[in-house]
Amino acid sequence: MNTSVTKLITLGGLLSVGLCAQQSAVAKEKEERTTPNFIIIFADDMGYGDVGVYGHPTIKTPNLDRMAYEGQKWTNFYVGAPVSTPSRACLLTGRLAIRSGMSSEKRRVLFPDSKGGLPPQEITIAEALKTKGYQTAAIGKWHLGHQSPYLPTDHGFDSYYGIPYSNDMDKVEETDHFTLAENERYQAYNVPLLRDQQIVEQPADQRTITKRYTEEAVSKIKSFKEDPFFIYLAYSLPHIPLFRSAEFKNVSLAGIYGDVIEEIDWSVGQILKTLKEQGIDENTLVIFTSDNGPWLTFKTHGGTAGLLRGGKGGTFEGGMREPGIFWWPGKIKPGVVMELGATMDLLPTFCSLAGINLPADRIYDGYDISPVLLGKGESPRDVVFYYRDTEIYAVRKGDYKAHFVTKSEYGDDPAVIHNPPLLYNLNIDPSEKYDVSGEHPEIIDEIKRILKEHQASVTPVENQLEK
Amino acid sequence: MNTSVTKLITLGGLLSVGLCAQQSAVAKEKEERTTPNFIIIFADDMGYGDVGVYGHPTIKTPNLDRMAYEGQKWTNFYVGAPVSTPSRACLLTGRLAIRSGMSSEKRRVLFPDSKGGLPPQEITIAEALKTKGYQTAAIGKWHLGHQSPYLPTDHGFDSYYGIPYSNDMDKVEETDHFTLAENERYQAYNVPLLRDQQIVEQPADQRTITKRYTEEAVSKIKSFKEDPFFIYLAYSLPHIPLFRSAEFKNVSLAGIYGDVIEEIDWSVGQILKTLKEQGIDENTLVIFTSDNGPWLTFKTHGGTAGLLRGGKGGTFEGGMREPGIFWWPGKIKPGVVMELGATMDLLPTFCSLAGINLPADRIYDGYDISPVLLGKGESPRDVVFYYRDTEIYAVRKGDYKAHFVTKSEYGDDPAVIHNPPLLYNLNIDPSEKYDVSGEHPEIIDEIKRILKEHQASVTPVENQLEK
Repeated sequence: MNTSVTKLITLGGLLSVGLCAQQSAVAKEKEERTTPNFIIIFADDMGYGDVGVYGHPTIKTPNLDRMAYEGQKWTNFYVGAPVSTPSRACLLTGRLAIRSGMSSEKRRVLFPDSKGGLPPQEITIAEALKTKGYQTAAIGKWHLGHQSPYLPTDHGFDSYYGIPYSNDMDKVEETDHFTLAENERYQAYNVPLLRDQQIVEQPADQRTITKRYTEEAVSKIKSFKEDPFFIYLAYSLPHIPLFRSAEFKNVSLAGIYGDVIEEIDWSVGQILKTLKEQGIDENTLVIFTSDNGPWLTFKTHGGTAGLLRGGKGGTFEGGMREPGIFWWPGKIKPGVVMELGATMDLLPTFCSLAGINLPADRIYDGYDISPVLLGKGESPRDVVFYYRDTEIYAVRKGDYKAHFVTKSEYGDDPAVIHNPPLLYNLNIDPSEKYDVSGEHPEIIDEIKRILKEHQASVTPVENQLEK
Repeated sequence: MNTSVTKLITLGGLLSVGLCAQQSAVAKEKEERTTPNFIIIFADDMGYGDVGVYGHPTIKTPNLDRMAYEGQKWTNFYVGAPVSTPSRACLLTGRLAIRSGMSSEKRRVLFPDSKGGLPPQEITIAEALKTKGYQTAAIGKWHLGHQSPYLPTDHGFDSYYGIPYSNDMDKVEETDHFTLAENERYQAYNVPLLRDQQIVEQPADQRTITKRYTEEAVSKIKSFKEDPFFIYLAYSLPHIPLFRSAEFKNVSLAGIYGDVIEEIDWSVGQILKTLKEQGIDENTLVIFTSDNGPWLTFKTHGGTAGLLRGGKGGTFEGGMREPGIFWWPGKIKPGVVMELGATMDLLPTFCSLAGINLPADRIYDGYDISPVLLGKGESPRDVVFYYRDTEIYAVRKGDYKAHFVTKSEYGDDPAVIHNPPLLYNLNIDPSEKYDVSGEHPEIIDEIKRILKEHQASVTPVENQLEK
């Protein structure tokens, strides 16, 4: 059976509630209640500590701060991988990248010469929601394959507007990012801007890209005359090279990196404002997070993971724990959530809130966290796997995290194997400073059991990043 | 002239507005407007990163978070010294500890065998406010001299209830703080609890001390039938050894340190709630801060400075930058304030708000920051001096901080002199990672000039800590 047929059958199974033209008003109301709009706002390389309410002293983020105060601020919220491509695959499929072939040690992400992408048989959030009549739009960085059949419009999105991979790819001029930030020579990177599957600008003018993504998102929200809809808004910044609109030049005390985040904060404000103006804020769940930790290599042009250790590329907390802000006025129970959550939980959660059954033909690594959002229960997530490419370097179970392997994020040093693993109590020791492996052999045993069980669930698939 | 006479004369000069029994209703209303109540809530060894809204992932501080959201969260707020005694002297006098003799390299703080204390001729916030008829109460740790004439009731406070120095002094049993936290043997420290100038309990039962300070503060607020009043509530925790009430045992995900902070957060909530219940919240300015950074030596029993470098005892940011939350419903302009402020600014600010002129016979190191609180202007503070004991190790001017000397907080390593000084842009590089001294010689020159000017303003006084 080819992959398209598999997918069609699976999606048929997903369609648990049929839409009927003659449905009664009551049924319609019920239908509406179970089909909230969803918006995922996803930054690129933003760190745990880059938002005011997550502790940054000089980056002004009044919109994100308010969003967190009115909604839920999650403080143990994870991505599925510490680099772009696999992290995005995890988010959009609700599954670890190892299951879709979207991780590799040789090539950690997709590059312009890559031939692979997110396999057609993978079901994205957009595809899942399509079974319930959702209108869908992807805006921003994709990085899951830049040729058909891997593009957003091949994966359940009605429309796409954005750059297909990272903003530092297709480099055509020798330059350094500090100089570039000064002279704003975006032409040094010949990155294309796509509308649906067509290139509409090349090189993309990155100076105005956050602004244009925002305009696109606002316009989409206004164009959807009826609910429900799903928007995936994935900024291509603050990934280096850094750019921002004229209005945000030198506005931040925190330098150009601060400018970029403050434009993103403005953008988030525009989205929330538009939802309110359209009177649909109480029927729209908005999530803000990032794909991985700050790129520390780039010093003041990279962000900060705050008190967390490490950054992008590695499996210490700074690489994979992210701001996670959930907003849904009148529905969400406001507060700080310290339970575990992950971007992979979004697909199961959205499906649960929209009344869609998950297909039974595949393993999901995400959980339905809607009980936490609605203040009705606890998070079912108790475990986090820290994959570096195709290998698990660490596992978190409850309070404890065991590092079996560590390696510097981008150094040439060899990986260090720890036996016994390093063990940290993350809630008491969030900066991973004090190894307590000697005190808790029973916890290490339990984590080893979980690891073994997980590894038995993983079956080999074709590697997409090495194509 | 003896010191008491000097003080009397000075205070006479301070009394700029007389209270008149026959004053008209209009005058009374005006009077009320210019005599708000003041409450300073002061933690001991709490770090910049130990509050939810300052970035801690697992210490729950809903009351402080709300206080910050309703009021102002200052992110560049400093103490005058990285250890207890001089920091407290700075706060209560509005002057650097070097001016009152309250700092020393030999004995960094006062100990039970110390004979000195805050000199009688120093004017505390309480003494300044007394000239305008304020009722005053000190609650908690004092640490500015534990014998008359150095006690709170010798320094303008109508009443005192608390321990006169640190909770780890008067050690009478050999124990370590981890064991102590387990078995709660507060008797290991024979610290006295005073009411006014009498010992009412010895050893103080530290398990319930935060709760009892809170009850005292709530009772004081209720007992003041009329405005204005000033309460100085200085918790003796989270200084080690850690203790908390039965209700807060094992409530925090962050371990015993988290329990202690969560009890303090509860306490803050009780204060604000009482103000609302009494209908005086809109006439009361409340400030929350801490005396110095986290005591990192004590690992998970010490707090965290978040993304800031260093901790208690040192002159990197972690030692001297603190949470600074200002709350005054209906009066304060809510938001995040990134301008410079310091505990030394509280005395001039309170005097300004209460219509009291500062005495002209002494140098003040604090500034009136009320324009920032009321949303009417900018902070006049542009400089911070980082004193380690009697020596200046670093100076901040605007964005930049120059370290002339560095030394580990509590190590035996010698001080390292830097020439040129290390230079950091704190707003862009809050973790003090990237020295830019080579790029900005002109800023170093400017800072050197400021340093020299300051040093010329310091005249030798009797050292109180070496007595």
